[in-house]
Amino acid sequence: MTISVGLLEVGELGEEFSNSLLKTMLITGSALVFMAFVGFNTAFAPTIDGMIGNPLYGGLFLGDFSANLNGLLGGVWWSMTPTYFGTSLTAGTYFLFEAAFASVTLALVGVVALRKMKLEAFMIYSIVYFVLIWNLPAAWIWNPTGWLFQLGMRDFAGGLVVHGAAGAAGLGILSVIWLEEKHSGLKESPRVGCNLSQGWLTIAILLLWMGWFGFNPGSVLAFNYSAMVVVVTTFLAASASFLSSMAYKSFVSKQNPGLLDAVNGVLMGLIVITPLAGFVSPASAVVLGLIAGPLFVIAESYFNRFKWFSDPVGLLPGHTVGGLFGIVMIAFFTERDFASASGNPTLPNGLLFGGGLAALQQLGIEVLGTIIVMVTVFILSFATAWAISVSMKGITNGYKSSAVLNK
Amino acid sequence: MTISVGLLEVGELGEEFSNSLLKTMLITGSALVFMAFVGFNTAFAPTIDGMIGNPLYGGLFLGDFSANLNGLLGGVWWSMTPTYFGTSLTAGTYFLFEAAFASVTLALVGVVALRKMKLEAFMIYSIVYFVLIWNLPAAWIWNPTGWLFQLGMRDFAGGLVVHGAAGAAGLGILSVIWLEEKHSGLKESPRVGCNLSQGWLTIAILLLWMGWFGFNPGSVLAFNYSAMVVVVTTFLAASASFLSSMAYKSFVSKQNPGLLDAVNGVLMGLIVITPLAGFVSPASAVVLGLIAGPLFVIAESYFNRFKWFSDPVGLLPGHTVGGLFGIVMIAFFTERDFASASGNPTLPNGLLFGGGLAALQQLGIEVLGTIIVMVTVFILSFATAWAISVSMKGITNGYKSSAVLNK
Amino acid sequence: MTISVGLLEVGELGEEFSNSLLKTMLITGSALVFMAFVGFNTAFAPTIDGMIGNPLYGGLFLGDFSANLNGLLGGVWWSMTPTYFGTSLTAGTYFLFEAAFASVTLALVGVVALRKMKLEAFMIYSIVYFVLIWNLPAAWIWNPTGWLFQLGMRDFAGGLVVHGAAGAAGLGILSVIWLEEKHSGLKESPRVGCNLSQGWLTIAILLLWMGWFGFNPGSVLAFNYSAMVVVVTTFLAASASFLSSMAYKSFVSKQNPGLLDAVNGVLMGLIVITPLAGFVSPASAVVLGLIAGPLFVIAESYFNRFKWFSDPVGLLPGHTVGGLFGIVMIAFFTERDFASASGNPTLPNGLLFGGGLAALQQLGIEVLGTIIVMVTVFILSFATAWAISVSMKGITNGYKSSAVLNK
Repeated sequence: MTISVGLLEVGELGEEFSNSLLKTMLITGSALVFMAFVGFNTAFAPTIDGMIGNPLYGGLFLGDFSANLNGLLGGVWWSMTPTYFGTSLTAGTYFLFEAAFASVTLALVGVVALRKMKLEAFMIYSIVYFVLIWNLPAAWIWNPTGWLFQLGMRDFAGGLVVHGAAGAAGLGILSVIWLEEKHSGLKESPRVGCNLSQGWLTIAILLLWMGWFGFNPGSVLAFNYSAMVVVVTTFLAASASFLSSMAYKSFVSKQNPGLLDAVNGVLMGLIVITPLAGFVSPASAVVLGLIAGPLFVIAESYFNRFKWFSDPVGLLPGHTVGGLFGIVMIAFFTERDFASASGNPTLPNGLLFGGGLAALQQLGIEVLGTIIVMVTVFILSFATAWAISVSMKGITNGYKSSAVLNK
Repeated sequence: MTISVGLLEVGELGEEFSNSLLKTMLITGSALVFMAFVGFNTAFAPTIDGMIGNPLYGGLFLGDFSANLNGLLGGVWWSMTPTYFGTSLTAGTYFLFEAAFASVTLALVGVVALRKMKLEAFMIYSIVYFVLIWNLPAAWIWNPTGWLFQLGMRDFAGGLVVHGAAGAAGLGILSVIWLEEKHSGLKESPRVGCNLSQGWLTIAILLLWMGWFGFNPGSVLAFNYSAMVVVVTTFLAASASFLSSMAYKSFVSKQNPGLLDAVNGVLMGLIVITPLAGFVSPASAVVLGLIAGPLFVIAESYFNRFKWFSDPVGLLPGHTVGGLFGIVMIAFFTERDFASASGNPTLPNGLLFGGGLAALQQLGIEVLGTIIVMVTVFILSFATAWAISVSMKGITNGYKSSAVLNK
Repeated sequence: MTISVGLLEVGELGEEFSNSLLKTMLITGSALVFMAFVGFNTAFAPTIDGMIGNPLYGGLFLGDFSANLNGLLGGVWWSMTPTYFGTSLTAGTYFLFEAAFASVTLALVGVVALRKMKLEAFMIYSIVYFVLIWNLPAAWIWNPTGWLFQLGMRDFAGGLVVHGAAGAAGLGILSVIWLEEKHSGLKESPRVGCNLSQGWLTIAILLLWMGWFGFNPGSVLAFNYSAMVVVVTTFLAASASFLSSMAYKSFVSKQNPGLLDAVNGVLMGLIVITPLAGFVSPASAVVLGLIAGPLFVIAESYFNRFKWFSDPVGLLPGHTVGGLFGIVMIAFFTERDFASASGNPTLPNGLLFGGGLAALQQLGIEVLGTIIVMVTVFILSFATAWAISVSMKGITNGYKSSAVLNK
């Protein structure tokens, strides 16, 4: 999945393989090693006052050299016991699942670093990222003792924890890059242009599409009826978004839609459904998908106006806008029957399904949590990138030429 | 799987990615949305007099906005209850499985439309296809209340419903294309030539081979002993067909076999075993595979004689001939032990295994069902393409140049 | 998996697709057909005096045309009953799993045959290979009645049976090639050079990485806690080896590491962990991975000194050195808790975990078994290649030009 994001870069930007693939392989390796070494604990061990998981729970590297960690060779990871989620998941399974989530989140962040940021700087950033930056929102929202979870916030498969937060972290890096670029006398940030390689674009989207069916249904954390419904809602949202983006491009923008539009349409449907795939009916997923297609086209043209950063793969209009839009939609489209089946029995019906005041309150909680997470992640990411910038005398590599736009 | 067919086109025809991939992505998106919207019902809901599934069973889009559809969040889809197939499959799982079947069938049909048919025309065709044309044979043969199923006809994983019917539907489109081409003064149909891209051909066959292991073993509709036997028979047929086609090309045709021959050999083995993979022993699968290899080589040279259509990827000699040959072989190679284990206890032993009169009767039923399905699908496909041709003033895009044959 | 090795050749050597892919497709087809025809029996049927499986157990082709083979449609394959491994695996599942192992082993052997050996000669070699050469070590070590298994030797997922033995078989072929080359007057063996195709290299490593997660966790032969721990140890070893090889190349060799170094680093981690993935803790897997990275770099420069063979993809420094190193490490890193959970309760703790004398004895057994297997496989492979060489008047195709090294 992480490496698929590398292939997406290759496909959209005509990027050289060695750049994108070394970067995403480094992300994958770093995620596994540093998540095993305390990162999994800071996110998913029992929290200290709801703020951060106990970094030494069970020992480093999933129980050090011993087999005593509960849920490794027997028993169940603490938060999967009936007191909490009751899904009986083991430590190994849960670790791999969440390390994959963390890894793909940094891969999304990394699309803005491409060509502009030194690989060593990004490598150091990744260690902080997998020990602290990714882990805080996960500890708050996905850990059953986290303070936002306790407040009632829900985010099914990472509309905020993955897609939204990736945008906040990316903005933190982009800000440091812009500070350096401005300091070197530039008036606007050099644009990284598109240069399609249709073959790789296709392979990337195929792998991403398949990979999503690990993340969304996996977020039920059990193999049951609900997991299959989540496959259905995810597929329907992606298909509806694809069809609506093609139609919007043809009939409203009066342009001939191409493969890149198709890919972005599919991705936007997948992103928008992510935070609520387990809470809604198949018909709602179609409605959400139909909205998602045009939403990306509009958001992309909005973000293209900014001159101080370059976001060629669409982290902000795609992942951030789509993820946060999906988070807000929780308060509109949730149906309790579906939410209960996916393990979220306390979530109220949405406004469109008679949720009334409870839905309004849910809306407030989701918006509050979103703002706090976005601000926190932005500050941590900016501070980390800035500290690296100071100690390495710059994180940028002097990229200046504006590639030809070939879209 | 559907998109793999697009990659096969790219690999065999040197086709541009955007053409083949946009088409197959449209097929996938359209299949999911329109199968969810009544298409799944017309095929798999309780039938009206054995002819067509009740289109409004449980509501549109798999139960509208409600969770009341049985088998969605609890219970079992009606035909999976012990009264019928007794496999306990849920609505979501069954929908996804069958939508994938429908999608890949239209992708096979679509190989004959490539380069010659307008994309908008094919898009409209796809809606009719997923609501009616694909669904009728499925309702008759795969729905336990369908009239052909009740008559005793069996088709394990789509020798007729997928591969045979795809040929009938393709011929319907080819006929309308030929009517338009003849009307525009052409003496014979411009040939779409082969232009191999070995890399994409390889990726396509890899994905198709893997995907087949969703379709064939999945057709047991349960994960049990029989499903693993089906993996074995499918693999052995593909391998034996590959080896026999290479040997036939070398020793009988006296040609040096290449990658395209290898790919076609594997595919033909997969196609031939499809309608009876759950009914036969591993040794029979090897025998069937050994026959399949030369069968394709012979069928291809037969179909190449026709001048009024162009079938560059081999829909007719591969999928239609192979699928229908496999259907007929049901009456020869079936062994009751295997058929029972895959959920088909009423199927008699084949002629080669002492089936006698019961096997002859089965042969009659299979042939009768095949003829009726092929004729029906051809007529529906022709009528649909013709209606679109009239309303859009032609479905062809004026393709005239005969590409160089580079095989 | 087998075909991934073909893609690896294409990616590393800039090899033409048709050569590598036809070869690996032939290996796959041959493995399935000839393993079904007695090869599975010679390895996994009840052995004759611990030396070789009964070739006619249950009939050819997995029970001939009958369904009477136990474990095919009901019951359990004999060695999976509680008397032996007690995993309840069926004949079909076990056959497919082991045929995949056999197939990938010959694909590894085949990398040394590329460009130099006639395809027909390799095809004949493959039949002997799948009926006898691959099967003997499997019968001795993986069959519970095999003499080395009874002696106490263990090899979790093929450090010796797959990776080590592939090197011995490869050396047998290389020796015959060298005899022919020397006979034709050459002073040293023409080198097959590297010519990277980064795209295919990437796809190859992605598929290999994924495929390894069939082999290693699958070697638990059951889906349980231990299988997930094996996924974790395999992933961590690969990631740690990747990071350590990059670091070693950068800081010790003072070179800029590229994509090929990354790929080899990942592969070496996977190979080293293979024979003991089910016996060690996650932290030990990280340690083993950290050693594996530099080990490959050192081994590769050692094997590059030899002039009488060409091993461009690194069969000997990678698979043989890595596999045998992992085998030896069993006596150092094993922890009984982990070994028991993966079905190996008799394995003692390793020297690093207080194993003492029992661990030393285990070390002796592993080394003894390794030497006997390596010598046997080398002799059988050499004799087979030599017999083919005599009867076909040479197995080489006259490859003489030394390709430019482009690494």
